[in-house]
Amino acid sequence: MTEAMENLENLPLREDLRGRSPYGAPMLDVPVTLNVNENTHPMPVEVVEAITREVAETAKTLNRYPDREFTTLRKELASYLGHGLTENQLWAANGSNEILQQLFQVFGGPGRSVMSFVPTYSMYPLLADGTNTTFIAGSRADDFTLTAASAVEQIRHHKPNLVVLCSPNNPTGTGLDLSTIEAVYEAMSEHDGITIVDEAYAEFAQDPSQTALTLLEDRPLLVVSRTMSKAFALAGARIGYFAASSAMCDAVRLVRLPYHLSAVTQATALAALRHRTQLLENVEDIRSQRDRIVRKLREFGLEPADSDSNFVFFGGLKDEKAAWQYLLKDGVLVRDNGIAHHLRVTAGTESETSAFLESLEAYLRNTGELS
Amino acid sequence: MTEAMENLENLPLREDLRGRSPYGAPMLDVPVTLNVNENTHPMPVEVVEAITREVAETAKTLNRYPDREFTTLRKELASYLGHGLTENQLWAANGSNEILQQLFQVFGGPGRSVMSFVPTYSMYPLLADGTNTTFIAGSRADDFTLTAASAVEQIRHHKPNLVVLCSPNNPTGTGLDLSTIEAVYEAMSEHDGITIVDEAYAEFAQDPSQTALTLLEDRPLLVVSRTMSKAFALAGARIGYFAASSAMCDAVRLVRLPYHLSAVTQATALAALRHRTQLLENVEDIRSQRDRIVRKLREFGLEPADSDSNFVFFGGLKDEKAAWQYLLKDGVLVRDNGIAHHLRVTAGTESETSAFLESLEAYLRNTGELS
Repeated sequence: MTEAMENLENLPLREDLRGRSPYGAPMLDVPVTLNVNENTHPMPVEVVEAITREVAETAKTLNRYPDREFTTLRKELASYLGHGLTENQLWAANGSNEILQQLFQVFGGPGRSVMSFVPTYSMYPLLADGTNTTFIAGSRADDFTLTAASAVEQIRHHKPNLVVLCSPNNPTGTGLDLSTIEAVYEAMSEHDGITIVDEAYAEFAQDPSQTALTLLEDRPLLVVSRTMSKAFALAGARIGYFAASSAMCDAVRLVRLPYHLSAVTQATALAALRHRTQLLENVEDIRSQRDRIVRKLREFGLEPADSDSNFVFFGGLKDEKAAWQYLLKDGVLVRDNGIAHHLRVTAGTESETSAFLESLEAYLRNTGELS
Repeated sequence: MTEAMENLENLPLREDLRGRSPYGAPMLDVPVTLNVNENTHPMPVEVVEAITREVAETAKTLNRYPDREFTTLRKELASYLGHGLTENQLWAANGSNEILQQLFQVFGGPGRSVMSFVPTYSMYPLLADGTNTTFIAGSRADDFTLTAASAVEQIRHHKPNLVVLCSPNNPTGTGLDLSTIEAVYEAMSEHDGITIVDEAYAEFAQDPSQTALTLLEDRPLLVVSRTMSKAFALAGARIGYFAASSAMCDAVRLVRLPYHLSAVTQATALAALRHRTQLLENVEDIRSQRDRIVRKLREFGLEPADSDSNFVFFGGLKDEKAAWQYLLKDGVLVRDNGIAHHLRVTAGTESETSAFLESLEAYLRNTGELS
């Protein structure tokens, strides 16, 4: 045990936190970072200028608390999402992690449970721990897909208070059919449970019209969570949001920290939303790089999953740890999600994507996996 | 019950949240807002420009996740605080509410308790609820002071897992003697409990050298919490921080949301810290307005508490609700903390302070409380 760990263990931590390490992907300084599904395209100059202008204006009144209700931002988010949504149905927080934390605080907590289907976004169990909510790890098929029948059966068995469906799923990249989401919602409704669809990567879907936003009407227990980190290239600004019934927004108001969304965050989000045309152009290019990765990996004899996101999850590697190291040596950082024979790679710019594909091809030729 | 409330009650909320209303001071648009202890002095132009420059630079890379460890900010905060502190002993979050929430998550939770001495900052019990920690309301003397003997006796009786000492206290404004804090720490240490000193208003103290920062050495269970909302005039930017042992910082890393502090927030905080000379000049003026309020209220025959903060808590009103309404009619918003015969007012600029004093004097003459 290191001295740091020893000192930590001497503190009167909550028992269930003892021996834990903080969450976080390794932060390595390499030329090509394709490990955390960032939007790696440079920020458009117009957007940088718009953010600067908006923040310059906001800075003059930073001595005052921000608009606790971030009404302008909720309006702009509603207008972006469409589907007849109004600002009363929108809520935002510091990243979609905080969105989920607030929902777990309201509907989870001691004696309550949240279910998700693993492998999925690895923060869900940690957010459950942080809110003293029991995490139930539902299962997927061997190819990581999830059918409506399997999901419904598992839900009826465990009756969780919340379920989180990550669609497109992280790390596997594939979106769920709307019919599966509908079936899950029905099964959850039988015991008055909340269904959260985490659509962090929705804008990258093969068919973006297939969103759970279309299911919101008449489903008061449904929440569709989104983020500006990916399509809007604002990972650094930490802005997550959800659309749901207005009562759902009132529910999280019971636990949100007052003034949780800073004036600077609100200004940054507004500037980006008002310049979404420029930002969403990059989404098109990322989708084409993503499809290029899937095509090439299949040519290499690997097994990439269909991707509705800005990343590709692929199997078929003899030794994923050796492959990860080989790529790193070439200055390309990808993600090892701890799933045997698999790695996950973010679709970067054209040149970043080429660097990844070339390094991986060289690795496969070296090991004889590709001749 | 309103329709909104009815819809909310139909959701499967955690049982203990049923019937609750969201926390928050009324947000009324009046000329003189002295109700939430903001720094009402205009932001210095140099600081606005520095924030704009720093954010303009940061905006170029907002597509990337922020520095999860905000190392530069922790260094700058350590340098500002002095007392031999290093960046390993500093931690920051989105407002000191989030600081406390993280500490309650790590050291509180189900089956654990946090104690504070009421009346005090009204968020403490709400943060306890939000983290499923039992809140124990300790008591103060009739004049709202807290002696070491009383605090120690109450702590030995309840043995809380955490205690929060608000010093200077909100809403009463008076700071605790360091000897009281030392006695509380000793009593808490007897059962391995955590002592948090919330010094949100420390820079306004009559003697700012009397800070619990001087007690940190060799007290591994002590945390001193601060904010940039008040002295640094950054309420809108949501930046709280604490100083403690490096192990304490490791402890909150177990529950903090990854990348919880946005790149824009980090940039804003850094710009303000680097221009602290200009910002802290306003603190001097606020202290003089604060002392002027205390002097005048005594002349009016009222009973203001000694203040180490940027606000004044005063008793002696026959009808505090009528006084609050009268001030509001004159465009002056102050805070009714729900304590009979008392109100709380923020020390504003010279003209805001004059507006408050003139309106209050007129009210007292109207009611015959002042002749």
